[in-house]
Amino acid sequence: MKILVLGADGYLGWPQCCYFAKRGHDVLGVDNFARRNFHTELGADSLTPIQSMEKRQRAWEATGNKPIQFRRGDLCDWGFTEDVIATFKPDAIVHYGEQPSAPYSMIDREHCVFSQVNNVVGNLNVLWAMKMHAPGAHLVKLGTMGEYGTPNIDIEEGYIEIEHKGRKDTLPFPKTPGSFYHLSKVHDSNNIMFACRMWGIKATDLNQGIVYGIETDEIAGNEALNTRFDYNSFFGTALNRFCTQAVAGIPLTVYGNGSQTRGYLNIRDTMRCVELACENTPEGGKMRVFNQMTECFSIKQLAELVQKAGAEFGLKVDVQAVDNPRIEAEDHYFNPVHTALESLGLTPTHLNDELVRTVLGTIQKYKDRIDTDQVMPRATWK
Amino acid sequence: MKILVLGADGYLGWPQCCYFAKRGHDVLGVDNFARRNFHTELGADSLTPIQSMEKRQRAWEATGNKPIQFRRGDLCDWGFTEDVIATFKPDAIVHYGEQPSAPYSMIDREHCVFSQVNNVVGNLNVLWAMKMHAPGAHLVKLGTMGEYGTPNIDIEEGYIEIEHKGRKDTLPFPKTPGSFYHLSKVHDSNNIMFACRMWGIKATDLNQGIVYGIETDEIAGNEALNTRFDYNSFFGTALNRFCTQAVAGIPLTVYGNGSQTRGYLNIRDTMRCVELACENTPEGGKMRVFNQMTECFSIKQLAELVQKAGAEFGLKVDVQAVDNPRIEAEDHYFNPVHTALESLGLTPTHLNDELVRTVLGTIQKYKDRIDTDQVMPRATWK
Repeated sequence: MKILVLGADGYLGWPQCCYFAKRGHDVLGVDNFARRNFHTELGADSLTPIQSMEKRQRAWEATGNKPIQFRRGDLCDWGFTEDVIATFKPDAIVHYGEQPSAPYSMIDREHCVFSQVNNVVGNLNVLWAMKMHAPGAHLVKLGTMGEYGTPNIDIEEGYIEIEHKGRKDTLPFPKTPGSFYHLSKVHDSNNIMFACRMWGIKATDLNQGIVYGIETDEIAGNEALNTRFDYNSFFGTALNRFCTQAVAGIPLTVYGNGSQTRGYLNIRDTMRCVELACENTPEGGKMRVFNQMTECFSIKQLAELVQKAGAEFGLKVDVQAVDNPRIEAEDHYFNPVHTALESLGLTPTHLNDELVRTVLGTIQKYKDRIDTDQVMPRATWK
Repeated sequence: MKILVLGADGYLGWPQCCYFAKRGHDVLGVDNFARRNFHTELGADSLTPIQSMEKRQRAWEATGNKPIQFRRGDLCDWGFTEDVIATFKPDAIVHYGEQPSAPYSMIDREHCVFSQVNNVVGNLNVLWAMKMHAPGAHLVKLGTMGEYGTPNIDIEEGYIEIEHKGRKDTLPFPKTPGSFYHLSKVHDSNNIMFACRMWGIKATDLNQGIVYGIETDEIAGNEALNTRFDYNSFFGTALNRFCTQAVAGIPLTVYGNGSQTRGYLNIRDTMRCVELACENTPEGGKMRVFNQMTECFSIKQLAELVQKAGAEFGLKVDVQAVDNPRIEAEDHYFNPVHTALESLGLTPTHLNDELVRTVLGTIQKYKDRIDTDQVMPRATWK
């Protein structure tokens, strides 16, 4: 398959390129290095040292696997996006290429507007380029479980049958996203749904949970292939940040009472979910939606798990309750359906002490690189 | 009240300024003349001759009413929007200032991206300026009934109680908008809903039906106060276009089988609805939604009404079925709830032959200005 990976330099984009290339696919990665630039702006860095794209490509080629092609450019630049899709003619477009941080989008007006324009325009450009130059391609778009918010009913996979005043319809699941970033993903989903209905485009919206983990089979053990691992308060997600705090010997920062519950999955499962989506092309005309997550945890449960695994690893781990910088319900119902990907063949990797210890072990290698100034929340929702 | 009217040069914005000024409010209008520029681009023009804003302001002052202030600028220009809101400190912000045409947003990629960026960024700037400089102000935002699409259940006013698997929640009404323009309004609604929840902003989303009519009490009979009246296939909405076609002696262009049903209201009712929203400030924290429409008609019914009123007026009116340029359900259920504004005091102006004859009479005055090349659809949804 010819697979275009947008956002190929990111936490998930890079290992996804390796995953597909390892399996013999023609992979073209695209990135404008926005994620590296955001970190320059914030004075933060990946825990893992990461190589330039050129060095990564060479290191990958040295493994004897099929090479990964790369083009640098911005999806908001129409000339670039059109040319990439018109010339590569992908079978599948895996779209990781967006600003992925909720706190970053909440910093101020400028970051809010940037996040929405960057994500919405990039995605619209991809849709138009598909319509014009690759109408048979399949868009595999990364969304987020955070689009749904925390409704008091079970969260279905994208659509819900509603019975109302004696009539019935199946409609998009109502969403109450929790940040300007999450809103940008809702805007994307709505735009894609429309493009599918109007133009018959094939698309899968993957509403992904929070990803944890530091390596995949393709990149593990080869430092030149490291993917980035962020632990700062902007781009570091809960479990990854907690593990880093545990190794650094500073308290885990639990926001609010810690009852906030979210869907999670292992980085290895992300690779496989995206592959399953690509291998199973949907019909055109209706956007398909999968909830891409394997387990639910509260923040408190994660903190306890890291404490326990840390103790087994010889670390004394404290927990510090921090004023919640977000405006969100802390005690709430949360029960998302996530059976579609499992029914296509996903075997979930469940989170346990051993897995956490492996992550702690890898972090340990880079302990000297931890900047403890980066972990306290700096953006607030107020 | 200090009322800021965004989009003060438009079809509804200008008469709304006069409506409020007549009632003694302090009115500041804002516009970047985008609507005039769109018409220059398309080689089209308003049926009614309209004056420059300066001449309009002077003509209004000559009526002895409270003057209307005006500032030219673009809501996407943060410096401008911030300064307007920080210095005027409005009690209410009536936001008509968006690109309002579905077909215009469907012309090509450029017009699609322009429509979404223009509308979403302008609206985000207004929200941020309110948060920073006018936290007590009330945003009265013009949305559209087209955000809902045509679901097979009754359309509630913004929210719906859903019972699902034995649990219940009241959630945003699921939307299936029909163009990139309509999507921009959905994005706006989602952004406003979030700003209300996070920052306690007071906002009313007016999901307006299709407005018809050519004059209001404040501007009727004074040509220098004319508001624009568009009949071209981009900015001319169904009934207004039909009336113009009837007077021009060309067939009414009914798209598809004409069973498409939508909500409508008279321009005079729009004025009053917006006033009712302003007079009844909602609590902060939850976006209030009104469905601003008074009656439902199918396109076919409208065409028949214009035929009948035209005959009484001495016009022979033909109807021409045109291939539907839109991708939309032609036969569908459509039953929106619209009781909130009536319960606040709206007395609906119902559409009838006499009203259509009055519109025909006004159009007759400007018959020589009709450019019949402008009425056939030029943008398609395909």
